[in-house]
Amino acid sequence: MRNRFIRGAGIPAVAAALALFAAQAAAQSPLQSWNDGPARKAIVDFVQATTTQGSPSFVPFEERIATFDQDGTLWVEHPMYSQLMYILESVPALVKAKPELANVEPFKTVLSGDREAMAKLTTHDLEKILFATLTGMTVEEFKAEASKWLETARHPRWKRPYTELTYQPMHDVLRYLRANAYKTYIVTGGGQDFVRVYSEQVYGIPPEQVVGSAGGTTYGHDQHGRPELTKDPKLLLNDNDAGKVEGIHLMIGRRPYAAFGNSTGDRQMLEYTGAGNGARLMMLVLHDDAKREYAYGPAQGLPDTKVGTFTQALYDEAKKKGWTVISMKNDWKRIFTFEP
Amino acid sequence: MRNRFIRGAGIPAVAAALALFAAQAAAQSPLQSWNDGPARKAIVDFVQATTTQGSPSFVPFEERIATFDQDGTLWVEHPMYSQLMYILESVPALVKAKPELANVEPFKTVLSGDREAMAKLTTHDLEKILFATLTGMTVEEFKAEASKWLETARHPRWKRPYTELTYQPMHDVLRYLRANAYKTYIVTGGGQDFVRVYSEQVYGIPPEQVVGSAGGTTYGHDQHGRPELTKDPKLLLNDNDAGKVEGIHLMIGRRPYAAFGNSTGDRQMLEYTGAGNGARLMMLVLHDDAKREYAYGPAQGLPDTKVGTFTQALYDEAKKKGWTVISMKNDWKRIFTFEP
Repeated sequence: MRNRFIRGAGIPAVAAALALFAAQAAAQSPLQSWNDGPARKAIVDFVQATTTQGSPSFVPFEERIATFDQDGTLWVEHPMYSQLMYILESVPALVKAKPELANVEPFKTVLSGDREAMAKLTTHDLEKILFATLTGMTVEEFKAEASKWLETARHPRWKRPYTELTYQPMHDVLRYLRANAYKTYIVTGGGQDFVRVYSEQVYGIPPEQVVGSAGGTTYGHDQHGRPELTKDPKLLLNDNDAGKVEGIHLMIGRRPYAAFGNSTGDRQMLEYTGAGNGARLMMLVLHDDAKREYAYGPAQGLPDTKVGTFTQALYDEAKKKGWTVISMKNDWKRIFTFEP
Repeated sequence: MRNRFIRGAGIPAVAAALALFAAQAAAQSPLQSWNDGPARKAIVDFVQATTTQGSPSFVPFEERIATFDQDGTLWVEHPMYSQLMYILESVPALVKAKPELANVEPFKTVLSGDREAMAKLTTHDLEKILFATLTGMTVEEFKAEASKWLETARHPRWKRPYTELTYQPMHDVLRYLRANAYKTYIVTGGGQDFVRVYSEQVYGIPPEQVVGSAGGTTYGHDQHGRPELTKDPKLLLNDNDAGKVEGIHLMIGRRPYAAFGNSTGDRQMLEYTGAGNGARLMMLVLHDDAKREYAYGPAQGLPDTKVGTFTQALYDEAKKKGWTVISMKNDWKRIFTFEP
């Protein structure tokens, strides 16, 4: 009997087990950290429409792709992107190694500690710092440096590691989609190699499912003849705005069925997702909870801030196109694990 | 009882089912199209070493990555890469659309049909043709064109579609590795978008697991305001030689545990794979079967040919570094499905 059972088991048995597991995972904990409301309903409706056999919007397993912006969508981006903090904090060590940079801009401004002057640094300035820091570093060295920084860095408000400042309702969505055979990707304007350092541990998203701004590398050998990959001062992919769609094509090669963002940098990704056939889910996180997190953006009648530019125009476009705006204040029951 | 059973099922039950399925798949058909010998043994030993719990070389599920070159490794590349054929055959339609190209090189040579002159075209010439053909085409248009070509094109010797000219022993390896939780990737010098058109159907490898030479794209809108991605005359990744390692870092972000190739274009990928810790598998397909397929390369005492440059130096390096050379003639019991 045992042999017959073993021989009888195979793809159908595995599929049945997976389906059972998926159904059960979905039934047990569908979006626990969400309040009932239109946002929660939009997610559940989308999953049911695309995963129910016989539904006109049914999506085959292999095409189930969902993409998530990171900063401000999966974790806190205020008052400054964690990676920006990492870049700025790397300057003293860089100048120690290359003292000639101490009196050169933009390094001089960063060393001054003058927050107001630092806030005026341009993207080009930051790129200059990034390339000066990383060029010639091996990918393993970078990974070790970034891991070390992430362990020790603390957010100024909560005094906690950034990796603890992830949104529990978004973890619910990641789990719920994966339980329904969706492959979840991060599509971030942040550095691909930076986010890959912690994506698996923090979000259950493996490095190969992280698309981000990416620099070139050069394959060569170290002094002992061991193969190594070192970082180049060359941007291969600027994974912001239209770059997010181009990055999705380059790295995934399929149009997503669901896309999540929180700023104008995610607009094109949502637009491209929504232009596909059948049921699609486009969502934008609105930061309107000054008490538990932050409130910023013009939806609160505030001027646009440097981070998370959820502009009024984006808000209007979302309403017009049927994208769902998630109110952190109203839609999220619990934001962080450490909340009482 | 039923409820208790359903509640009790979950990750452990699924893992058990998967393990059972994997063990069974492996036991049922481990490399049926291979003859007993050192090549087959190298594959089985590697899989056992890296997937047996408690083995010093055990590799966690999520790190199991195997990469495969395509042309000459998974399917026939002789006498010409299928994609090269596709590019050359696209020239008449291109010249019809842009008659001014008829007297311009390299288009003139291709139109002449002079095989000897065509054999002398450089990579730069081919790039010129490729960019002239593809620039401004949407990614969907390209996909449709390439699919159509693949359906109608026939290999000059067997008069069969290229998609039927895949090596059955390599299908065995793909299945065997996947049954043991390895994620299988194609890492090809060919065009990423071209190979993605058929990789899922032909090899069971989804588009997101195809790394290849990739051009840029531009996100914009068509005349009806619909979002579209069009192809650019810009090479983002030349996925040959060192570019294969750089492409693996960009698209996967992990070092493979197993890598398969057949030419100097795969050398660096195998070297990089072999430089990792623990058990690694590096294999090169040697085309030494003039009867069932082709024999080329200096291992047969023949001069290097334009395709599949398996040089004597590569052969010597493989022997020195312990990479396994697969003899098509001796190691493969059956090459094609249509063999008697």
